[in-house]
Amino acid sequence: MEGDPTLRLRVFDLNCWAIRYLSKRRQERIRLIGDRLCQEGFDLVLLQEVWSEQDYSDLKAKLGGCCPYSHYFRSGVIGSGLCIFSKFPILDTLLYQYSLNGYPYMLQHGDWFCGKSVGLAVINISGIVFNVYVTHLHAEYCREKDAYLPHRVVQAWELLQFIRHTAKAADVVLLGGDLNMHPQDVGIRLLRCWTGLRDAFTETKHFEGCEDGCTLIPNNCFTVNSELQPFPLGIRIDYILYKAGSGFTVRCEELQTTTGTAPGTDIPYSDHEAVMATLHIQRTGQAAGVTPSTAVPALVEVLSEARTEVRVGLQAARRQRYSSGRMALLALLLLLLQAAAALGALVGLAGGQPFPKLSFALLAFLALGVLLLATGLHLFHTIEVKMLQGTEEQMRMALGVLQERPGRS
Amino acid sequence: MEGDPTLRLRVFDLNCWAIRYLSKRRQERIRLIGDRLCQEGFDLVLLQEVWSEQDYSDLKAKLGGCCPYSHYFRSGVIGSGLCIFSKFPILDTLLYQYSLNGYPYMLQHGDWFCGKSVGLAVINISGIVFNVYVTHLHAEYCREKDAYLPHRVVQAWELLQFIRHTAKAADVVLLGGDLNMHPQDVGIRLLRCWTGLRDAFTETKHFEGCEDGCTLIPNNCFTVNSELQPFPLGIRIDYILYKAGSGFTVRCEELQTTTGTAPGTDIPYSDHEAVMATLHIQRTGQAAGVTPSTAVPALVEVLSEARTEVRVGLQAARRQRYSSGRMALLALLLLLLQAAAALGALVGLAGGQPFPKLSFALLAFLALGVLLLATGLHLFHTIEVKMLQGTEEQMRMALGVLQERPGRS
Repeated sequence: MEGDPTLRLRVFDLNCWAIRYLSKRRQERIRLIGDRLCQEGFDLVLLQEVWSEQDYSDLKAKLGGCCPYSHYFRSGVIGSGLCIFSKFPILDTLLYQYSLNGYPYMLQHGDWFCGKSVGLAVINISGIVFNVYVTHLHAEYCREKDAYLPHRVVQAWELLQFIRHTAKAADVVLLGGDLNMHPQDVGIRLLRCWTGLRDAFTETKHFEGCEDGCTLIPNNCFTVNSELQPFPLGIRIDYILYKAGSGFTVRCEELQTTTGTAPGTDIPYSDHEAVMATLHIQRTGQAAGVTPSTAVPALVEVLSEARTEVRVGLQAARRQRYSSGRMALLALLLLLLQAAAALGALVGLAGGQPFPKLSFALLAFLALGVLLLATGLHLFHTIEVKMLQGTEEQMRMALGVLQERPGRS
Repeated sequence: MEGDPTLRLRVFDLNCWAIRYLSKRRQERIRLIGDRLCQEGFDLVLLQEVWSEQDYSDLKAKLGGCCPYSHYFRSGVIGSGLCIFSKFPILDTLLYQYSLNGYPYMLQHGDWFCGKSVGLAVINISGIVFNVYVTHLHAEYCREKDAYLPHRVVQAWELLQFIRHTAKAADVVLLGGDLNMHPQDVGIRLLRCWTGLRDAFTETKHFEGCEDGCTLIPNNCFTVNSELQPFPLGIRIDYILYKAGSGFTVRCEELQTTTGTAPGTDIPYSDHEAVMATLHIQRTGQAAGVTPSTAVPALVEVLSEARTEVRVGLQAARRQRYSSGRMALLALLLLLLQAAAALGALVGLAGGQPFPKLSFALLAFLALGVLLLATGLHLFHTIEVKMLQGTEEQMRMALGVLQERPGRS
């Protein structure tokens, strides 16, 4: 690579679906992933859903030869699941946890417990500063009635703001991850428009892999086919995006995806397909040779669309905050009534105990339980309202700045 | 200001102690703060503990003439309390919420509920890009046995990492806030060493205000004097810090603090004193004219010290995770035993109901309550362990990078 004016970089991205006790044939697949990574010698490996630290350690041990530098991003109860392996030294890292990420009481979805985040690793390769981001956004469980869309839009906004603010001195920006958004979804358009990141799939010279670059395909034996019914080819939700800073160009020479079963075995690496990009990075020597910025009307349009989604979420969150608050108040009232009745019975005001003791105690405990639960919910939805309001305001401010300064990118 | 090669900037920083229902004479003090700000015409106003949005709106209305641009940073249940007012347009904002911030069950301290954060506002003044940060770290309730020290050190680390990563393209960096650390505390040394930020109090040409620049003084009628007993002059925990980017110099010409009672009234503005700095910013025209970086041995020393504090916190968090996990298990066991006994009684295995029904039901509810509570605590301390581990690893990586590259700042 040295002495060559073009830097060739091979990047691997995969949502590994490695949830302890839940993911099928997890350890076997982690071994297969490690083997593939060792064989192919990627420069950068961005993984998601590596939720067992043991799996990370196993991969680290296996990749010690080809990718000796690595970082595991910790957050939430079970961890962000994000990690990065690199052939080149990682100089610095930073984790940004999204402020909204589903609901703790949606145990069957579980996103809340992962503390979904974006991880940044700063890597210097042959004197070029790379800001490498790896992320995983909230899953989409029902496309027709997606209750998590406002949260995902907030995450996309926070992701793009984090990238914009932290990548100002980077020569090359790379983002890999499971964005849980189809290419035309508002969140990814917002992200791409506002950061100038380019999609390796649409930019690549050569493509090899699943049709339309899909990364969740019906052919994969681990995918739930009923969820993919409206999309016979599958869907593309895993991405490698990139951007060149001032004085650099980045081209995607080749993009590949895995296509179901791993070579020589009967199982795929994961329920997602891996995305593998070969990027060519060149110094242009011209300080102003940056990516052309998106036109202001397009920025305004996509931001307005995203803002509408955030507002819809805000209305729903306000309703939930109100209902939970009302429920907590009712439970408190019931408890107070019971306390008054009990006190009355104690001081002999009433003619005797009006209820059987057991029912009375059970009712009091029920009321207490409801009070605690509803209060917890109320606090949670208060936070949700605050964060949605905050994002809505940031978006409004960004629109204002755009409209005042039509030349701004 | 225009046409003058030196930009003169007046910055105001105050922890307003404006907690609805709790802070004494809150609305009166907010009015006084607004009046003072209007009279003096500061360019930038950084406030903390503005926890009522109504107070923010009142200030915004009052400051419309002198500081027409503002932003309120929302987070947590009751809000971060952070806001910023500016004479110049705010172009962009970003909020970073600290990953650790006390415990939700320490209701009497309440820090957890504020979602303590650092807010960033990007402001362009006469073509100079300012990254202005406002923050408020976890309070110190007992200096001798400070259970929150590891959390505050993690916050200081996250604050410095956030500043380092987001300020790379800034011409001038400003940080104001209540850091809840004395000038010699490990957190603030870490912050200053690793960012190169200078303390306006130690750098100023002229100082006027409380002795030693204290911002929590016994003379203030709202301070709890018993807490200040070991420090007869008071303590300095509110700061204005600054740094010039490449091609700029920043000097602090004058620093002032308020000294208790507001002029013409019988009350102070807050339980903290305000810090007011007059900064002179000049273009040097030399691209390399940056702040001299701290020597590597000093960086290593302070980072090692901070890492020790994080490790101490990690041990405590692991112990609490273990105890809460054990408590949850015991409650679960009791519940299972009761379920078995009840089942036995139902199918007639036992000679009859061994306990009175009421005690049996109460015990079951108690066990259920303990199970829920202990599970919640276990989850919370698991997150705490994860974040402390994550910080410890980041610090280890930073030490590694430093030791490999002795010339790096």
